[in-house]
Amino acid sequence: MYRAPVDEIAHAIKHVAGLSNAIDNGHAGELSEDLVDAILEEAGKFASDEIAPMLMVGDQHGSTLKDGSVTTPPGWKELYRNWIDGGWNALSGPEEFGGQNLPSTLAMAATEMWNAGSMAFGLCPMLTMGAIEAFEAHASDELKAIYFEKLVSGEWTGSMNLTEPQAGSDLAALKSRAEPQDDGSYRIFGQKIYITYGEHDMTDNIVHLVLARLPDAPAGTRGISLFAVPKFLVNEDGSLGERNDVFCSGLEHKLGVHASPTCTMIYGDGKFGDKPGAIGWLIGEENRGLNCMFTMMNNARLAVGVQGVAIAEAATQKAIAFANERKQGKSPSWDGEGMAPIVYHPDIQRNLLTMKALTQAARAICYSCAHAIDMSKTGSDEDRKFWSERASLLTPVAKAYSTDIGSDVASIGVQVHGGMGFIEETGAAIFMRDARIAQIYEGTNGIQAIDLVQRKLPMSDGQCVAAYFDELDSILEQLRTSNEPAFGNSTAILSDGLKALKSATDWLTEKSKAGETQHVLAAATPYQTLFGLVSGGIYLAKSALASSGAKDRAALCRFFAENHVNGAVALQNRVEQGADSFESAAASLVD
Amino acid sequence: MYRAPVDEIAHAIKHVAGLSNAIDNGHAGELSEDLVDAILEEAGKFASDEIAPMLMVGDQHGSTLKDGSVTTPPGWKELYRNWIDGGWNALSGPEEFGGQNLPSTLAMAATEMWNAGSMAFGLCPMLTMGAIEAFEAHASDELKAIYFEKLVSGEWTGSMNLTEPQAGSDLAALKSRAEPQDDGSYRIFGQKIYITYGEHDMTDNIVHLVLARLPDAPAGTRGISLFAVPKFLVNEDGSLGERNDVFCSGLEHKLGVHASPTCTMIYGDGKFGDKPGAIGWLIGEENRGLNCMFTMMNNARLAVGVQGVAIAEAATQKAIAFANERKQGKSPSWDGEGMAPIVYHPDIQRNLLTMKALTQAARAICYSCAHAIDMSKTGSDEDRKFWSERASLLTPVAKAYSTDIGSDVASIGVQVHGGMGFIEETGAAIFMRDARIAQIYEGTNGIQAIDLVQRKLPMSDGQCVAAYFDELDSILEQLRTSNEPAFGNSTAILSDGLKALKSATDWLTEKSKAGETQHVLAAATPYQTLFGLVSGGIYLAKSALASSGAKDRAALCRFFAENHVNGAVALQNRVEQGADSFESAAASLVD
Repeated sequence: MYRAPVDEIAHAIKHVAGLSNAIDNGHAGELSEDLVDAILEEAGKFASDEIAPMLMVGDQHGSTLKDGSVTTPPGWKELYRNWIDGGWNALSGPEEFGGQNLPSTLAMAATEMWNAGSMAFGLCPMLTMGAIEAFEAHASDELKAIYFEKLVSGEWTGSMNLTEPQAGSDLAALKSRAEPQDDGSYRIFGQKIYITYGEHDMTDNIVHLVLARLPDAPAGTRGISLFAVPKFLVNEDGSLGERNDVFCSGLEHKLGVHASPTCTMIYGDGKFGDKPGAIGWLIGEENRGLNCMFTMMNNARLAVGVQGVAIAEAATQKAIAFANERKQGKSPSWDGEGMAPIVYHPDIQRNLLTMKALTQAARAICYSCAHAIDMSKTGSDEDRKFWSERASLLTPVAKAYSTDIGSDVASIGVQVHGGMGFIEETGAAIFMRDARIAQIYEGTNGIQAIDLVQRKLPMSDGQCVAAYFDELDSILEQLRTSNEPAFGNSTAILSDGLKALKSATDWLTEKSKAGETQHVLAAATPYQTLFGLVSGGIYLAKSALASSGAKDRAALCRFFAENHVNGAVALQNRVEQGADSFESAAASLVD
Repeated sequence: MYRAPVDEIAHAIKHVAGLSNAIDNGHAGELSEDLVDAILEEAGKFASDEIAPMLMVGDQHGSTLKDGSVTTPPGWKELYRNWIDGGWNALSGPEEFGGQNLPSTLAMAATEMWNAGSMAFGLCPMLTMGAIEAFEAHASDELKAIYFEKLVSGEWTGSMNLTEPQAGSDLAALKSRAEPQDDGSYRIFGQKIYITYGEHDMTDNIVHLVLARLPDAPAGTRGISLFAVPKFLVNEDGSLGERNDVFCSGLEHKLGVHASPTCTMIYGDGKFGDKPGAIGWLIGEENRGLNCMFTMMNNARLAVGVQGVAIAEAATQKAIAFANERKQGKSPSWDGEGMAPIVYHPDIQRNLLTMKALTQAARAICYSCAHAIDMSKTGSDEDRKFWSERASLLTPVAKAYSTDIGSDVASIGVQVHGGMGFIEETGAAIFMRDARIAQIYEGTNGIQAIDLVQRKLPMSDGQCVAAYFDELDSILEQLRTSNEPAFGNSTAILSDGLKALKSATDWLTEKSKAGETQHVLAAATPYQTLFGLVSGGIYLAKSALASSGAKDRAALCRFFAENHVNGAVALQNRVEQGADSFESAAASLVD
């Protein structure tokens, strides 16, 4: 069973992401290392003792729909209640609305733990978090007064309504519409699909954030507005009023995250209320809904990346525990009686170390991104811009690299379990099933790659990414002067890796400037993988350098460098081929 | 819906594996190209029209157990009946027992089609095939007279009973026992797990092949014997007699292949018959059961590799069809109205081409292995030995590489479908779930790698693998003289790849000779991947060279070389690190 790796997460936050430095330099408000430790310890307890034991129940029962109402798995409601009673939903909300206003690094560390316990559970607060951010940044004071405190406490949850059948990655195709009413409210009509926790029985009310078009809105993404649409309208005294005209018409049968209801939501069908139309209120400005969404999206994407880390951690723990218990065959390094625990077999060791190294590399990227978000809220305007861009740069990598490795690690975990891995009761396959969606939602990893190469690399005319590479270089400089033999060939391989990443970046920048979009798009995914691989490898070095005498960390860095980062040059070549290598082959794909 | 790629498979068999040459040189008996085409065409029709439509039904219903009896999904029994009535089970069985004695290449081509239609269905005949081979090679005439014809026709199915809870990869730990009886039969006692189609309702009888120990058997793998244990005993007139003392006590809940019952089988519990003990008959010699099993295992392993190809093909077809229908966003290369079909997006093209190239590369390896099996049954002793060793060499690569890419391709298929990929009704996720077991059963891919480096490379003192590399070299020589510009940089990259593979092979040979087992074991998996990657890439070149003017094939070869095979050097480095890169890190894995 999963035990939250509190010390490992604390190390990553403090010494790799940089929270300790921030505390030392007065950039972290009243936060102290002791407080960080205390919060992580308590969150870890809840995740390990309360959430993780519910993983299998949630998967096996799933959520069910009857007459428009969703029933979550047995015990789920109580679990959620205990969780908000512990104040966990309020971790990062604003203090004036009951939140603890803790930094993103800590919120993401907690997010990792909830999702490692059960990703299907962790999804619910992740959606509420999005609503909280939208409210904080864009909602009117009137709206805040009614909804905000309950969202921050988790008393009510939030949902995000973007996707429609014809509008997935391309929100320009969105059709839901909003009709302005005389009282300043709007009536919302349309169908939304894949709405996570769009309906459930864990709270009395749900606040749906819905993208829709005003009657006179321009076509495309510049004609989309954002609305808050509660499941139940709220009376002036704060009590719940009439049911709003929105309901869940169907649940998806999914590969994973069974406990998390994935709803088709119908707005304005006339099922509830005096006349058709779900009553909603504008959040932010008219036609600026996508901008409001982008505010949230960065955080949500990072949180999804953290889900990848979470699943990878849980799968790794399970595989290592199994490999220590299960005995099969002989091993040169096992001198005990009878069959050797399979952890003594080199091929199993390779698998387990791959799981461990990928998990820690992805975690370092995610928390570095979270730290950048925190730093972007402090200091001079210049500092804020610098860190804000850093966070933007790392977000797609954190999302895509971590969720890619999440699936990879979960699949290796199944393999380590042998035949048992394929049996659902073993609990290894659930990680593989749950992890798979994280590569898809909040923007597929292909979309992340395009965001990285088209929007993020050009920031500040390339200075943002250049400064990031400088930082990686400075870690390599430290590594060069380290006398720790456990690093093996890490220095040379990581340096070559960074060189490959820089070269690929220059190539992309040139192609972008020359307007050769097809090459930029063709190179996006291998570039993103290269970015994650090299950053992750160098962060493992940073992690080892930060704990003097910890040969284990240096040895893990070596393993990763010599077995994974040494693939960097091949990735660079793939990038720099651009579309040339497949343009002519692609013709055969078209019907 | 899956359509059997008859032309593509025919091309692979004839021109890559070498069946056309064999026919031309008189090595293929009475087989003609026309006959090959006719059989593939008919098999393709059955797979596409009869089996594939049952895929989802099979997955959703699964097989169920009640009172020791297994009910297969609705329509499954009729499907199986139609299938054996078509003579498909008898394709490769011996003629004197009603088989058609067709070569392994054709049997494997048919196997690919059944399994692409539904892997859960295809599994049943695969197990029967194992029993047929065991009977053919080792059973007494008396046993053959009773069982063989019905196994060849598929009137009765076979099952393979190896695994026990404590004995998975390590069969030395096997505990089931066999007590000799006065009449020459044996009484079998024990529990077997993970028995595919160990019990079902599609046929009147099932012939279980069971590994067990005689009372005086030596410990370890040299004390294991093989027995035939029918579900129902057979009367002298061939009619079914009493129920034997074996039953299915449980079915596993699995990640995939739901329609295929995975049984726990209890032998000798006293549930049936006059006294406890399932009645069985020795196959082959006492204590030589594992050797008998190895006879079958090569074919079974190849067949599992073919399952990987099958799933990859089905997933690729589905993803390409979806990408041509689904419209999202804009693409530089789309000048139609509205949103572009996603097949026009470069990142989607990369995904689809990866699926296609991996599938064809793996297929080429599998059919080359099957062809070697066919060739090992003809010609001089020297020829037979040469081809038999070639088949042995390629078997682990065919099994592991193809099933690894099977899972990879299925997962990419989910990704191409976006959010829909995660929804079970879409039918993309089923491939991912079904494919996963193929990396595990018939010897995990880690076991295959160890077999490759420890048993296969040393064959004929390295001459077997050297001759194989010579053959790959001669393909590269042809490629060098080709003037087809669509090959791009294939020649250089594939040549570097083969160089890397040779170097890694030399390194392993040295380490083996020096007795440095830990390095050989540590390097096994990356070596196996390298072997598959380079072989597959060169086979894609061979495939293209064999169809003059077919620029599509050359372009696909180029895509694979420039985007995949260029990772060969990194794999070589991983091999040649041996255990050095992770020995010190591995210490942290042990509890």
